[in-house]
Amino acid sequence: MCKDLFRRETRGDRLIDVERARRDVPLLEKRIYLNHAAISPCIRPVREAIEKHLEDWTWMNEEFMRRVPFGGEGWEQGETRDVKASFAKLIGAKVEQIALTHSTFVGLSAVVNALEYPRGCNVVVMDPRLEHPSYLPNWLRERGIEVRYVYASENGLGKIPLSEVEKKVDDKTVFVFASYIEYPNGLRNDIKGMAEIAHDHGAKIVVDAFQAVGHIDVDVKDLDVDFLATGTYKYLMGPKGTGFLYVKDYDDLKPVLFGWACGPWYREFDKAKEGYVMGLHNSAARFEVGSYSIIGFIGAKAAIDYFLKLGMKNVEERLMYLGDYLIERLQEIGLKINSPLDPECRSGSVNFRVKGDPWEVAQKLRAAKLWVTGGDHYAHGIRVSPHFYNTEEDIDRFIKELKKYV
Amino acid sequence: MCKDLFRRETRGDRLIDVERARRDVPLLEKRIYLNHAAISPCIRPVREAIEKHLEDWTWMNEEFMRRVPFGGEGWEQGETRDVKASFAKLIGAKVEQIALTHSTFVGLSAVVNALEYPRGCNVVVMDPRLEHPSYLPNWLRERGIEVRYVYASENGLGKIPLSEVEKKVDDKTVFVFASYIEYPNGLRNDIKGMAEIAHDHGAKIVVDAFQAVGHIDVDVKDLDVDFLATGTYKYLMGPKGTGFLYVKDYDDLKPVLFGWACGPWYREFDKAKEGYVMGLHNSAARFEVGSYSIIGFIGAKAAIDYFLKLGMKNVEERLMYLGDYLIERLQEIGLKINSPLDPECRSGSVNFRVKGDPWEVAQKLRAAKLWVTGGDHYAHGIRVSPHFYNTEEDIDRFIKELKKYV
Repeated sequence: MCKDLFRRETRGDRLIDVERARRDVPLLEKRIYLNHAAISPCIRPVREAIEKHLEDWTWMNEEFMRRVPFGGEGWEQGETRDVKASFAKLIGAKVEQIALTHSTFVGLSAVVNALEYPRGCNVVVMDPRLEHPSYLPNWLRERGIEVRYVYASENGLGKIPLSEVEKKVDDKTVFVFASYIEYPNGLRNDIKGMAEIAHDHGAKIVVDAFQAVGHIDVDVKDLDVDFLATGTYKYLMGPKGTGFLYVKDYDDLKPVLFGWACGPWYREFDKAKEGYVMGLHNSAARFEVGSYSIIGFIGAKAAIDYFLKLGMKNVEERLMYLGDYLIERLQEIGLKINSPLDPECRSGSVNFRVKGDPWEVAQKLRAAKLWVTGGDHYAHGIRVSPHFYNTEEDIDRFIKELKKYV
Repeated sequence: MCKDLFRRETRGDRLIDVERARRDVPLLEKRIYLNHAAISPCIRPVREAIEKHLEDWTWMNEEFMRRVPFGGEGWEQGETRDVKASFAKLIGAKVEQIALTHSTFVGLSAVVNALEYPRGCNVVVMDPRLEHPSYLPNWLRERGIEVRYVYASENGLGKIPLSEVEKKVDDKTVFVFASYIEYPNGLRNDIKGMAEIAHDHGAKIVVDAFQAVGHIDVDVKDLDVDFLATGTYKYLMGPKGTGFLYVKDYDDLKPVLFGWACGPWYREFDKAKEGYVMGLHNSAARFEVGSYSIIGFIGAKAAIDYFLKLGMKNVEERLMYLGDYLIERLQEIGLKINSPLDPECRSGSVNFRVKGDPWEVAQKLRAAKLWVTGGDHYAHGIRVSPHFYNTEEDIDRFIKELKKYV
């Protein structure tokens, strides 16, 4: 898949006007920011949308009161519907399949709690060396569920082979859990292949897409995933505290947290008597509980619409090109890459090894206005995560500074 | 309790400079807003704090990176710690007893799921005519738990007598669930009395304080509540999608949703191997799951700090005074009050009956730039909910317009 997008000769910006895009990111005036896998700066369209919302909230006109507090027909309309529609478009889903969440973990946690775990069942999860310590499926072990791990090759720095996934999944598997892109080193998992294995055994696949959305072109229909969750503050360049949960088939799922947002109470106000229990929405919105950050989602929508305009195929092509450029420059100065080199299973996020403490090197780079992340929990290396508006010149500057410390 | 605060001769603004406060609410230039029990307008300090955050996020300086993304020592520090400290001060709690949530329902839902329900147990809840249709305890019936209702006197418009609560609570009661102030008509429940009854039987009291915080002086220590949840967009005048959960004793409680925010993973990165399960925070933060809306909580903190400066005793006194003024004016024109008249069990939110459709009357008032809420689900009346900066003149204007439609 990645090979087609990997057109070196186009510099990956065939369809993106990089110079113009840079004007939307004021931060670039002050530093070279190569840390989008951690948190992204505020871009002009996001700031403008939030400032407009502040103005609207200050004056609370009819339009604000209609669209923001509860919407014309309750929670399902207004601003919340619009941001879900934008996100649905971004990942190739239907709007009914999207629920608002405030973080990736909340989305994943809601799903993991809504699935049923018969006695003797198991879940199959990926390499814990590439996942966050708070790795959600681990918590299931405390509920007596067997957790099976599949390890990446090359001591965690190569890919996760489908053949290994196949060995672990059986007819007692409830779900396969995988990150689309692994956070320490940008490994891109073969979600489509993993989904096929899961489905062959009647299991569901649950995808953490936080590192992938806004980074590569994500198509839930093509991948055939059952659940996918993300937040917006990394590559998608939205605010913190806003996220989305995609649910392919929501009909039989019952959320564990309940509140006014999970069902159409506004059609049943007259039934609010002793014993009344509200039905759930006929949509993924049943996983919503109460009020979400409108100011956050207004910003998130502006960010998503920006990426829709750029086109995620173009952004992915650009990031793969920059990743390739970066890998070559790092290899030229003799550094070992901690990310897979095969374009089929890497992304625009690249990790490399340094002598000494990678955290300290990252601090020195930051002092020179070059922002990257490094440390023990980043494959004991330095992670460089450019975005589509970074340039070869940015990377050359980075390499020049880096040479002082390696 | 209210009687002491009810000093008519002081106009309730002995310690609040109302004219000056009005300058912090630009909306007042354009309309008379008496709808704070629904959603509040953006005040100047909140807007300024959020605009400063947008500027900080745009430039992402060291201070921003230290305080916002994860904090110096992970989730427990930085901006999130500061907003919790402000909220703790507001309700007389310790900062360790506060968890961030994004809505009242999420906070309540987390608690209700963390409590244990032995066979044959029950929960005692208040009048469903005064609660939202999506009333959380109702969902417990589906899990086989007996739900016992306590009704308000005077067909739902008087108070909820403690003697009736006492009849329903027994040694098989797990929790007593009550709103501090009921949303349709401003009934103020005797939470302290209810807590005493609950505790006498070894039960816990769970309080929905969304209508109370920012409205009356809430002191969790004096009330002796076990759990209290609120959002910030009503009387507290913060953004949507931000809220707090107070938990008196968190030690033995296990949340149902898990994520990186519920435990100190950042001290155990090296242990992230197969089988690792992160421990929970030794604080109410164990109920936090993932990233929260920083932009929202920055606004929430500005709002809370504003109320801390005003003093909640002063705000409560002012709102009780305005409520009294409003009730007298409504009675003068012969309208029946749907709220309790006894100051001990009413608040600053007042509901009254009109001939005809209350929703339609509310629409006509809105057209005349007087914002209130009305409809079937508001005790079949119109709810008027002023805030501390409203004046007698605002209410006189409201009464003058109202007379045209009743």
